[in-house]
Amino acid sequence: MNVSVQGKTQHFRTVTFDAKRNHVRLIEQRLLPHEFKIVATQNFRETAAAIRDMVVRGAGAIGATAAYGLAQGARAFRSIDRKKFSRHVEMVYATLKDARPTAVDPVNAMNDVRRVMARGESVAEQQALALAAAEEFANEDARHCEEIGQHGAKLIRNDMRVLTHCNAGWLAFVDIGSATAPMYAAQAAGKKFHVFCDETRPRSQGATLTAWELAQQGVSHQIIADNAAGHLMQRGEIDLVIVGSDRTLGRTGEVANKIGTYTKAVLAKRHGIPFYVAIPLSTIDWKLKRGFDIPIEERHEHEVLGAWGVAQSLKSGVQRLKSGARTYVRVANPTSGARNPGFDVTPAELITGIITPVGIFKPTELWKRRRDLGMISKA
Amino acid sequence: MNVSVQGKTQHFRTVTFDAKRNHVRLIEQRLLPHEFKIVATQNFRETAAAIRDMVVRGAGAIGATAAYGLAQGARAFRSIDRKKFSRHVEMVYATLKDARPTAVDPVNAMNDVRRVMARGESVAEQQALALAAAEEFANEDARHCEEIGQHGAKLIRNDMRVLTHCNAGWLAFVDIGSATAPMYAAQAAGKKFHVFCDETRPRSQGATLTAWELAQQGVSHQIIADNAAGHLMQRGEIDLVIVGSDRTLGRTGEVANKIGTYTKAVLAKRHGIPFYVAIPLSTIDWKLKRGFDIPIEERHEHEVLGAWGVAQSLKSGVQRLKSGARTYVRVANPTSGARNPGFDVTPAELITGIITPVGIFKPTELWKRRRDLGMISKA
Repeated sequence: MNVSVQGKTQHFRTVTFDAKRNHVRLIEQRLLPHEFKIVATQNFRETAAAIRDMVVRGAGAIGATAAYGLAQGARAFRSIDRKKFSRHVEMVYATLKDARPTAVDPVNAMNDVRRVMARGESVAEQQALALAAAEEFANEDARHCEEIGQHGAKLIRNDMRVLTHCNAGWLAFVDIGSATAPMYAAQAAGKKFHVFCDETRPRSQGATLTAWELAQQGVSHQIIADNAAGHLMQRGEIDLVIVGSDRTLGRTGEVANKIGTYTKAVLAKRHGIPFYVAIPLSTIDWKLKRGFDIPIEERHEHEVLGAWGVAQSLKSGVQRLKSGARTYVRVANPTSGARNPGFDVTPAELITGIITPVGIFKPTELWKRRRDLGMISKA
Repeated sequence: MNVSVQGKTQHFRTVTFDAKRNHVRLIEQRLLPHEFKIVATQNFRETAAAIRDMVVRGAGAIGATAAYGLAQGARAFRSIDRKKFSRHVEMVYATLKDARPTAVDPVNAMNDVRRVMARGESVAEQQALALAAAEEFANEDARHCEEIGQHGAKLIRNDMRVLTHCNAGWLAFVDIGSATAPMYAAQAAGKKFHVFCDETRPRSQGATLTAWELAQQGVSHQIIADNAAGHLMQRGEIDLVIVGSDRTLGRTGEVANKIGTYTKAVLAKRHGIPFYVAIPLSTIDWKLKRGFDIPIEERHEHEVLGAWGVAQSLKSGVQRLKSGARTYVRVANPTSGARNPGFDVTPAELITGIITPVGIFKPTELWKRRRDLGMISKA
């Protein structure tokens, strides 16, 4: 999407490949929203470190980064010995996989790349195919998000107030995003609307990443405390909710997403506000039989007990940045602990529709439409 | 309530009066939870400044502080001229009233004091009566909270997990608190239970004040992000909700309280979890006919866009305090704004009961029981 850099608007993807230098180029997401910077990894080990250290995060984005990282590692091999090359590629694959051991996207993406590479005979052929496959993976991720946008944009009408939670934006994918895709498509179609971003404690991805994205695209928006959405709905100030999903159960239509999503769905149901979930097909889990069995990650309590930000003076109404570096401040009582579940599960009955690259479906329709939704190739 | 100071546990009220020195003594709440300190105001102007600058906050606490401040101002008068004394008292009254112009508690408290003073003839008599009336106001506030505790404690059974929101604790009153009163009474009765404190963004009163209070009393508790309560309810980990109220409509049973209260009530209803509101009688508004007409204060956006805390290093797992001073950090995207409604309104249908000093009532029963609830003297 577009980013304004030193007054000039340029188009960026979260991850791209510099074939000449054999570098993976990434938006350094840990500096956002306070600083925009592109970093280049010189080799696959640096690419693995960037995934591990969350320079890049988000399902689609780390999938594409791992795919490029595998091509990068393969292309750095300097011999024509196919056996040695094969062992080298396995080592690169394992290194990238270990960077985020619980994530499924890097593995799926790299398996795609490996499958295509197998069509080559010589090392050089396989190296060329690796890059082509990685590029295709990234392009497909962006294309799927664009299709989500085309389907979802129909839901956004002029003067609507749209709520979103966390960051299911282009920073989590190669481009465009999932929950944000309908917004960007509606804006491109000239519609006028306003977005409320839940700040999304404890990690504040809404206040930092989503707000930054929307600001860069010039989408009208405001950040709200997670506590405020219920009040705004009660006063008739929210017309539509669109969120993303980390895992969607193909059999039941249940949606696991960032903690707080379930709460917003319950509130939307009470107020008769449509609640949509935008997803790429890769997040559909066709195996699991009930949402209760989705493991809910319990994260470190310091996320709840404090916040990361840039120290500022609020004196005399002027907000001055002291420095661009983020500081952790302990907000909570020093002798108290916290519970910190990272995700929650929203049942199908609270979800109006699932926006996918191939259309919008009722959550309970997914299983019936599993062939259209890619179940055969994934399960 | 009890506070552990340098290893020794002592009993404190949020506000007391030192008759010998003519000082109002206050817990410096702006330093909590990172530092516990008592400050003494030397004269009524300093007392007004302490109210204005939120050294002391919370309905009951600022009421008692204003009552003491009026007595303090009256007692500092050094003449027997009753006319001049009367003018002096009016000036003190106006100064204290202007400290928090929208708050109703200081005015009610000072009117009580003035009414009692009027029984005296000489300046000295009136000065003595002023202090007696202020002491009586503070004692009554504490006694009412104790009575809330006695009624509410019956709701807490062994092994329950209780959710609370914001700080309706003893720091908001002279002692004991409203929403916390049943917890302290249940604990005194030897019951074992666990409290989840919503952190209560954007001002984090749950993570700072309520968690500090509960820690000082040794009540088992954990802080959660405001986003997490829905998930915990869904997984059967919350049995009871008790919150406070800033204004309760006597005619409808609607409750205005800290933003996010409504959301918790909607979730509790969905999960069949009892939702109680604990209130002193002074928060009942017998005049207003519908909750929609309660003005909802829109607060400064910097509350949502950042957080206050003590800078810490999270390196090597050790959380080291750099200094006791709180820093404001900007969390959100620097070019984004925020909406910041401070309160919301919970309808009677979501409220299981209202815990008052005179018993527990259904919210729709308040009007019928208005004589027991002090309506005649207040309206």
